[in-house]
This record gives sequence, structure tokens and C-alpha cells, in this order.
Amino acid sequence: MNGFVSIVGAGPGDPELLTRKAAKRLAEADVVLYDALVSPETLSLAPAARALYVGKRAGRPSTRQNAIHRLMISCARRGRRVVRHKGGDPFVLGRGGEEALALVDAGIPFEIIPGVSSSISAPALAGIPVTHRGISSAFVVVSGHAATAYAPVLESLHPHSATVVVLMGLENRADIAARLI
Amino acid sequence: MNGFVSIVGAGPGDPELLTRKAAKRLAEADVVLYDALVSPETLSLAPAARALYVGKRAGRPSTRQNAIHRLMISCARRGRRVVRHKGGDPFVLGRGGEEALALVDAGIPFEIIPGVSSSISAPALAGIPVTHRGISSAFVVVSGHAATAYAPVLESLHPHSATVVVLMGLENRADIAARLI
Repeated sequence: MNGFVSIVGAGPGDPELLTRKAAKRLAEADVVLYDALVSPETLSLAPAARALYVGKRAGRPSTRQNAIHRLMISCARRGRRVVRHKGGDPFVLGRGGEEALALVDAGIPFEIIPGVSSSISAPALAGIPVTHRGISSAFVVVSGHAATAYAPVLESLHPHSATVVVLMGLENRADIAARLI
Repeated sequence: MNGFVSIVGAGPGDPELLTRKAAKRLAEADVVLYDALVSPETLSLAPAARALYVGKRAGRPSTRQNAIHRLMISCARRGRRVVRHKGGDPFVLGRGGEEALALVDAGIPFEIIPGVSSSISAPALAGIPVTHRGISSAFVVVSGHAATAYAPVLESLHPHSATVVVLMGLENRADIAARLI
């Protein structure tokens, strides 16, 4: 009998900012495959589960994406209830779409549980609304990982038309700042 | 003694997609001021609270923003624990920033509790990731309420550089589609 995979957004870090549905799936999970950005406190909500770290961090040895797919699929095929636990929201620069496609190809039933995206909530918790009446009626979220991704956005977008949020931009911050100026 | 205001994102509708923190604040609330986009099921999580509708819908009589501020402040001044409950995330086209500033001006202690934004989760639950490796490394969320807000974004953004999500665009959908084409 096949198990089931829940691709679950973990939110920005505080376990209190998990959704109720995410907490429920963690409580029932047999296996949790978690990323670097998931806080350790969150895992305490899955006391019965085997927790496997499959994180990727810039500049460190990392789990390859295909290996994550294989692990997720093999756990589900052994009938396990799997939580694939990803920082923020699974579909915001989180490769959740690829993981969903791998599950479709393997014929494994799954669900997506959206999370509070750090792209919006991290500025919010620092007191910065991404939209504000009379100042900004739009925001853009862009990966800062490669100039091929962010340059077309930063260089084409009309000045003052949107708040710009760059994720994973630490390494390219000088180039990003120069393009914004 | 002053009360306290929690400006709380309600997420996209399903009460299971409320955060644990939001559910906790609702359970403890004396007063809930809620918007049109908050689902009725959500209010059942606040059984002890007086629930006051302060919603705004296009083309219908609506509560003025200043009246919401006054109500929020007067409830807090009477020592109440107030939940200001807003659909999606309070800072995504939700005027949460203005409400926070009104509370600052009135000297009322408050917090922001981010929510799952419908701008990301509604496409997700329809099977559309806003970012997907090799296809889109960015997304933009823009108000469709007025062309002065969306035209600069839609017309300047480099084609294929970002997924575009338009909120509140029903009335202007023909104009929005024409600009995108």
C-alpha cells in the first residue's frame, strides 16, 4: 500500500507561524524530510517521526535534488506518511514544483500545504509592509542567486512601481545594489 | 489599562491554513474585527469574542478605513484583547500598514501576525507554483484595482522574467489582459 506525501511550508522560522494543518501533518508523520531553513523547534511537533535532514546551503555539501525525490518516493512506497518540510512556502523559490512533478511521475498521492512566505513575513516582522497605500501597490520577489534571473527584473521594472524583495542574494549583493542604483 | 491589538492574517480561507499563533489569539480574544474575505468558520475559533464585521467589498456599502481605526482603538482603550482579522496576509494589499500606524499614533500596543498570502497559495492550490526552476525565478503581485498601479508594472516588466499575480483585478480584467498581450 502506498503512503502519502505532504509537501508542507514551514513558514519563516517561528513554530507558532506554522499553519494548523502543517502541525497536524507533523503530529501524524512517520517520516519528516526537512530543509536547512526549517527550525529545530518545529521538529518537536513530530515526536513519532524519523527526521531526516536533506538540506542545501550555499557553499556546503548538500543533498542532490534527485536524491530527495528518490527518498521521498521510497518512503511513501513503504506505506509511510511523509512530510516534506520546506522553509517558508514550498512554491516560493523552494523547488516544491519539481518535487510535486516527481511524485506525479511516480504515482504517489500527495498534497501541497502552503506556508507563510518569508518573502513577505520577514519584512513584515521588521516593520516593513511590502505594500502600503499611496506608496506601493505591488511587490516583486526574485531570486538573487544568479544575475540571469534577477537582472531582467531589476533592470526592466519601472522605478517606484513595486517593492523589491531579493531572496538568496547575499553573495551577489554588490551587483544587486549596483543594478538597483 | 490599555488592551492589545493583534493584526492577524487569516490566510486564503480554509481555517486549517490559519497559523497556530493566529488560532491562539482568536481563542483569547475579547473582540474580533473581521473583513469580508475572512471565512465564517474561522470565527468559530473565537467563541468568547464579540465579532464585528468591518468589511469592504467593491460596489457595496463599506466601513470606512478611519472608522475601523477608531473602533480598534476604542476597544483597546477599554482594555480589550482585540484581533483585527484580515484575509490573506495583512501587509499584502490589506492596509495593515495604515492600521499599524494608527495604533502607533494612538499609543496602543500591538503586534503583526503574518498569514498565508492568497497571492501565492491560491495559485498553489490550483496547481500553479509562482516560481519553478528553469521557468520562473521571480513573481510579482500587483493590485488590479487601478491602472495607475498596475500599468507601470505590467508594461515595464521584461517578458518572461516573472510570474504575474493580479489581485482585485476582476473589474479591469479586459484592460489587464490587453496590456499583458
